[in-house]
Amino acid sequence: MADKITIALDAMGGDHAPAMVVEGVKLSRERFPHVHYLLFGDQAVLEPMLAEHPELQSHCEIRHTDEEISAEMKPSQALRQGKRSSMRLALDAVHNGEAGAVVSAGNTGALMALSKFVLQMMSSIDRPAIVAYFPNQQGETVMLDLGANVECDANNLIQFAVMGAIFARAVMGISNPRVGLLNIGSEELKGKETVKAASAVLSQGDLPFEYHGFVEGDGIHRGDVDVVVTDGFSGNVALKTMEGTAKLFSHFIRQTFQSSLMSRLGYLFASHAFGKMKLRLDPRRYNGAVLVGLRGISVKSHGGADALGFSTAIAVAIDMVANGFLDRIREEMGKLDPAQIESLMAGVE
Amino acid sequence: MADKITIALDAMGGDHAPAMVVEGVKLSRERFPHVHYLLFGDQAVLEPMLAEHPELQSHCEIRHTDEEISAEMKPSQALRQGKRSSMRLALDAVHNGEAGAVVSAGNTGALMALSKFVLQMMSSIDRPAIVAYFPNQQGETVMLDLGANVECDANNLIQFAVMGAIFARAVMGISNPRVGLLNIGSEELKGKETVKAASAVLSQGDLPFEYHGFVEGDGIHRGDVDVVVTDGFSGNVALKTMEGTAKLFSHFIRQTFQSSLMSRLGYLFASHAFGKMKLRLDPRRYNGAVLVGLRGISVKSHGGADALGFSTAIAVAIDMVANGFLDRIREEMGKLDPAQIESLMAGVE
Repeated sequence: MADKITIALDAMGGDHAPAMVVEGVKLSRERFPHVHYLLFGDQAVLEPMLAEHPELQSHCEIRHTDEEISAEMKPSQALRQGKRSSMRLALDAVHNGEAGAVVSAGNTGALMALSKFVLQMMSSIDRPAIVAYFPNQQGETVMLDLGANVECDANNLIQFAVMGAIFARAVMGISNPRVGLLNIGSEELKGKETVKAASAVLSQGDLPFEYHGFVEGDGIHRGDVDVVVTDGFSGNVALKTMEGTAKLFSHFIRQTFQSSLMSRLGYLFASHAFGKMKLRLDPRRYNGAVLVGLRGISVKSHGGADALGFSTAIAVAIDMVANGFLDRIREEMGKLDPAQIESLMAGVE
Repeated sequence: MADKITIALDAMGGDHAPAMVVEGVKLSRERFPHVHYLLFGDQAVLEPMLAEHPELQSHCEIRHTDEEISAEMKPSQALRQGKRSSMRLALDAVHNGEAGAVVSAGNTGALMALSKFVLQMMSSIDRPAIVAYFPNQQGETVMLDLGANVECDANNLIQFAVMGAIFARAVMGISNPRVGLLNIGSEELKGKETVKAASAVLSQGDLPFEYHGFVEGDGIHRGDVDVVVTDGFSGNVALKTMEGTAKLFSHFIRQTFQSSLMSRLGYLFASHAFGKMKLRLDPRRYNGAVLVGLRGISVKSHGGADALGFSTAIAVAIDMVANGFLDRIREEMGKLDPAQIESLMAGVE
């Protein structure tokens, strides 16, 4: 299957574009030798860059445009004025079937708006969600929604659970993912009504995953489940909070090693091991957030990504295409009986 | 002022009670030599423990009861059946003016329910909130609500902001706290409507703190503000997520130091410095969550607290009493003009 895969790239999006896009493709080719790439962007800039890598020529095609979406552009502007932009044309290539997925490190708001507009929602999904994954104590955790929806109802959460489980299977290779709903769980406060309603349905449904029940914030990084499902507000808060705490610890570790002559000596001995730990937690290895729920695959790379980071986002796109992510969603959503969900939710106080 | 302070202690609450309560009082006495304590619990057990510390005798009074709230008891049960429990009697002592605050390491749900029932809400506050503080890169961050309210409206958030600021001043000694509202802030998603409405009011009000605006999850531990205000769901998710990420890092640091002979040697040199870092982040130094918005001061110690942890919770209670926390809340809430808030909020889309 992988020999037919084509990925559309917004070659002009991101702080280090287009150089990191071309270098990212070079790294990806080592891992996925048969994938093809459509690079949307300025031919005059891209051509000499590609020329430096003769081995990429047969797998890459430049699609020229001299327009791009700037980092400052508002989503509404991008929709109106960005029709010839590299981001928009890359999405069009997915829409018209030329490519299986798009990857962009450009303007997040614009990519979300354009993805929804060009690719359209799946008929079985009410709201899109942003999904990504990061390290936990044992392996990796998938989480969604990371910010596409400020408010979510129980039905949204159920759909996110299905999409998250299929993502975990397609991208992480977890055959029977454990899925949990983020909640707050002290005795007196059993959490949100919407979360409880979604839980009642998930506990009884015939679903393509193992429903674990509620998970609290400290269970995310402990790896209590493979997939954490929540609304976009809490999901974004949790994700950013993790980043902040990780930075706090990095800051304290650095400060600690520099605090005395003895600790500096200690660092000399332990630096190799800490280098490996840094590599294990390297954000570039966890790059690539996906807007799921659309009729096409749209992957957002971090704007500041380098070639390694961008190639990780490309790998996410390839895994989703190769493992038939969209067909699997359609199939599993078709199995959910809306009438049954309705009646189950009506039973929740 | 401090020589008139009396603190009521639930001597039977907590995994290591009552020994850690008595030892905690001993540690507190070194820091606050003039404070008096009422110890509610089993006289037959407490008396011999106190007898070992003759210096405490003149500052401690045992109030006997052989009933206590178990860890498993539901809040509703505690309300009905716990009328002679050590927790309830300690709260009664605050209500009837014998003590300025209560500290308990017992059942959280029961303490919240009994505190609300016995102490009652302040007339100017609609909902209570749980507030606590923890380390950031520069100093400490106060956050509320940590779980008392799953849903909050804009007015609740405004009241939490006022209470959080006064807490920061009373307990952390920050004279002009910077207060921020937790939100998610990408370009296309300006966050929750309730948060935006609260922000509109806080931006214009004559308030006893500096309103900073929105803060995202990664700003909490960076120390963007002194006080982070949010609803109980997001607050609890953020707090628990921090705990989980901190544990993930501790796990990786341990694993890294043990990973090779060289890294073990490194640890030998750096262990003193890492010991100091551990001390800096010691959760026992950040023990004591307070249920604010009531007509009395009720401090919850972690259930697993040892004497040092419990003495920190006692210190929080003493600071709040000594700095007139309750009077300050009444005073500042009185300055907020409900009609003005109403009209400001009506102007927010």
